[in-house]
Amino acid sequence: MRIDALQYANWSEKIFNQLREGGVDAIHVTIAYHENFRECVLNFEQWNRWFEQYPRLIRKGLWASDIDEAKASKRTAVFFGFQNNSPIEEDIGLVEVVHTLGARFMQLSYNNQSLLATGCYEENDPGITRMGRQVIREMNRVGLVIDMSHSADRSTIEAADLSQRPIAVTHANPHEWAPALRNKRDNVIRAVVENGGMFGFSLYPHHLKDKSACTLESFCGMVARTVEKYGIKHFGIGTDLCQDQPDSIVEWMRTGRWSKQIDYGEGSKSSPGFPDMPEWFRDNRDFGNIEAGLLATGMSQDEVAAVMGGNWYRFFAENFTPQEK
Amino acid sequence: MRIDALQYANWSEKIFNQLREGGVDAIHVTIAYHENFRECVLNFEQWNRWFEQYPRLIRKGLWASDIDEAKASKRTAVFFGFQNNSPIEEDIGLVEVVHTLGARFMQLSYNNQSLLATGCYEENDPGITRMGRQVIREMNRVGLVIDMSHSADRSTIEAADLSQRPIAVTHANPHEWAPALRNKRDNVIRAVVENGGMFGFSLYPHHLKDKSACTLESFCGMVARTVEKYGIKHFGIGTDLCQDQPDSIVEWMRTGRWSKQIDYGEGSKSSPGFPDMPEWFRDNRDFGNIEAGLLATGMSQDEVAAVMGGNWYRFFAENFTPQEK
Repeated sequence: MRIDALQYANWSEKIFNQLREGGVDAIHVTIAYHENFRECVLNFEQWNRWFEQYPRLIRKGLWASDIDEAKASKRTAVFFGFQNNSPIEEDIGLVEVVHTLGARFMQLSYNNQSLLATGCYEENDPGITRMGRQVIREMNRVGLVIDMSHSADRSTIEAADLSQRPIAVTHANPHEWAPALRNKRDNVIRAVVENGGMFGFSLYPHHLKDKSACTLESFCGMVARTVEKYGIKHFGIGTDLCQDQPDSIVEWMRTGRWSKQIDYGEGSKSSPGFPDMPEWFRDNRDFGNIEAGLLATGMSQDEVAAVMGGNWYRFFAENFTPQEK
Repeated sequence: MRIDALQYANWSEKIFNQLREGGVDAIHVTIAYHENFRECVLNFEQWNRWFEQYPRLIRKGLWASDIDEAKASKRTAVFFGFQNNSPIEEDIGLVEVVHTLGARFMQLSYNNQSLLATGCYEENDPGITRMGRQVIREMNRVGLVIDMSHSADRSTIEAADLSQRPIAVTHANPHEWAPALRNKRDNVIRAVVENGGMFGFSLYPHHLKDKSACTLESFCGMVARTVEKYGIKHFGIGTDLCQDQPDSIVEWMRTGRWSKQIDYGEGSKSSPGFPDMPEWFRDNRDFGNIEAGLLATGMSQDEVAAVMGGNWYRFFAENFTPQEK
């Protein structure tokens, strides 16, 4: 089973076919960065159209059982998530509404301070806000997973502590392997793991050692060491694949409508666009390379299967349904 | 089994308890008259709160099977509908979105001309619009029932003809019994019935012969004659009960935000508010009176059971799920 816990592609029939070529049974796709509720609903609508247009390639993903059904019918189950809390605006009632519509992950902040938590690019991190505490409880209740990929350290550790259910960092790598601002230090990874949560290894070049030049051996070695250190069951893949997107999209991701100035985020003035993917992971067709690379490190078949999808499957099964009373 | 296919009460724990007292297994409640999409979502949110607050009295209704579950646990299943198409704005993609959120009925127009069809108070009825034809097809596809209670005759007959699935008039009475503008003439009832649709008898005094003074015998006699004339399987109850609402609400229903002048609708300047209910149907506690009154007409046990809920149950079971391909 292969599950990718983060993609934000410029979706097309070509990419849906590549998902099948790569044997990807489920993906978690981003449908909001800075969209408000109504704009985010337009993105749900767009996916409804794609499900109608490509019923032999993709299907809506709401529950883990939808992955089994997708696998059996040789399709990919598509689960939805937000990289920011903008879709719920200032209205806690929208947490259940977006879950009903199909959202399964929501980041509490995206780079900046939000109404709920602090983002990883802020200078100061005062931790989870008053509204943030309420929203964490509500997300736990309905089965909307807290994702802290772009949040600051203190906020992430507090979220893991406050949440009664496991949280996730869907896409990042250990900071000690590649010291990017978005990668996570030991205390953050530990907080996620101790809360029972999941961590998805990113293939986004800005999160890789040597960026686009990162080798498969280096990446897989890092995975092997990390699962050895923190425990196999807390790790999966979250490629952060942004395939076929024009550079205007990375500008939207970074700057939204919150600034009139360009913010280069993980890029720079000389390299403002999307970086090239490493040659061993061009797109969804190359999950087999990662699987082979992990086996080559000496990890067992079972361990590799857990990282390639088994762990996310279990996490989806346990965390998307409403909390038992 | 008792099902009421139209209520718009000022909901409270008191009314939820009265539903139980009256043995009501399911109700279809109006959650939009003139609300746009975002405002209508606030009404879904309010119901989510009530489901959370009163789990022993009510539960969300999405499918006919939810009625079985409600009956077994001595609760009332609450199904949602709109009396107007305002919640889908000018966006056909919202048809599937509101169905996902739980909407199961939508009127194509409410008294006035809409983007889709003509309302019963308009002087001219040009029939189903261009967008109306598209929306009917989409409603058929997802399982959102077309309700023509407040639509004009030509639009209603065309909707019945265009729709590939049965339509409904959830709340009205035969015009020949009580010649109110909202009551339906023979050709309209026949169009609904021939399309396989359902018609719900209204208890709203403006739809009754002699209004608030209407007798139980007169009402039940009309029901018995109507089912005899058109066929038993097409009829149920749709009380249009607007319990505990202040008169400001009937003004909202009639005038929304489309006029700065008062429109008295079915009322009048001397009697602008909600009329008194007939003494034999005060509220949800009195469904037993109707059942007894129907039996007293000589209708069989099976016929009475069909009208009190069996027919709506079958209709819900057949028409709320997506269309088979």
